[in-house]
Amino acid sequence: MRFVLASQSPARLAVLRAAGVEPVVRVSGVDEDALAASLTDPAPEELVTALATAKAEAIANDEIANDEDDDAVIVGCDSMLLTADGEVHGKPGTVEVARERWKKMAGTTGTLLTGHAVLRMHGGKVVARAAGHEATLVRFGRPTDEELEAYLATGEPLHVAGAFTLDGQGGWFVDGIDGDPSSVIGISLPLTRKLLRQVDVAVSDLW
Amino acid sequence: MRFVLASQSPARLAVLRAAGVEPVVRVSGVDEDALAASLTDPAPEELVTALATAKAEAIANDEIANDEDDDAVIVGCDSMLLTADGEVHGKPGTVEVARERWKKMAGTTGTLLTGHAVLRMHGGKVVARAAGHEATLVRFGRPTDEELEAYLATGEPLHVAGAFTLDGQGGWFVDGIDGDPSSVIGISLPLTRKLLRQVDVAVSDLW
Repeated sequence: MRFVLASQSPARLAVLRAAGVEPVVRVSGVDEDALAASLTDPAPEELVTALATAKAEAIANDEIANDEDDDAVIVGCDSMLLTADGEVHGKPGTVEVARERWKKMAGTTGTLLTGHAVLRMHGGKVVARAAGHEATLVRFGRPTDEELEAYLATGEPLHVAGAFTLDGQGGWFVDGIDGDPSSVIGISLPLTRKLLRQVDVAVSDLW
Repeated sequence: MRFVLASQSPARLAVLRAAGVEPVVRVSGVDEDALAASLTDPAPEELVTALATAKAEAIANDEIANDEDDDAVIVGCDSMLLTADGEVHGKPGTVEVARERWKKMAGTTGTLLTGHAVLRMHGGKVVARAAGHEATLVRFGRPTDEELEAYLATGEPLHVAGAFTLDGQGGWFVDGIDGDPSSVIGISLPLTRKLLRQVDVAVSDLW
């Protein structure tokens, strides 16, 4: 059975590989802004789950077109950081935005929301679906000005949801979490395992 | 400045590399059982800190002998799992012991204790010392019998403190943690950063 990861995130790929799964990476062309705009005042956890589902469904449509006899699971993911001031943040994109976010969030607690959708494909059709989300508290440390500038200069925080990583250089500046660390990196292993079981797949069958 | 990791753990090395530090790995010949036996009824957190300190000091003695002009920090680490029944566990070593531990700890909460010692070396001498520990709650999932046997067959749990990993295949079977995930993998980035600051080193100087 193929494990198809509907995400271009190298962090998600690394989590899965370290956990014994070698995914096929497929990147969907979902217009995230348009999808978000189409939902009426969604809760943040609804939004990440809807985006994860849209990404997985987009790949499922391709899979059906490309390989009718396939036996696969497709996993879609989306992550956002809900900060203490109630705002929802994706990737900062620029040094200036990342610096501003860190100035606000240093020493505070945020919630990293991760949505996942699992589609089981068989004989060219989606035969089972499961979706859910994880919410993990993140306690941010207080980098010094020197450390923050050095961190921004690495470029790492610009391209990740919430302007930090747990498994990279950002890990020095996260004092702790309450929840599943793999959900913060981008793909929750225990949630994925639970969703796989809902579509009758044991994770050990993917090793 | 050199960062010397007094540990042969590939997981610790991987955490540090991902966090921007390329350590020199040096393995101490500390007799852990003899050291543990020499302490009078130590609390588990005292034991991991004492073992971490002994490992770093053993390397410091070598460093002094080998390179008198060196400028370096040496970091020693030790980890143990304190299970819900009050027992302290290191590496299980065999499939049988690992299976027995998982049968007991599935669905329970344990505490992963990690001790660190940092020695700053300059001109062939230890010029500053800092040590401390982290305690992180780990909520174990419930692998099915099929999943547990598949996990044991990978060999991974035999060689790690507490018979599980967070950053490998064990991650499927940890529902969550409360604390620092890097401390569970084996080297706490926020604690190491704090100890480095106590010996006047900024972590960004090591990148």
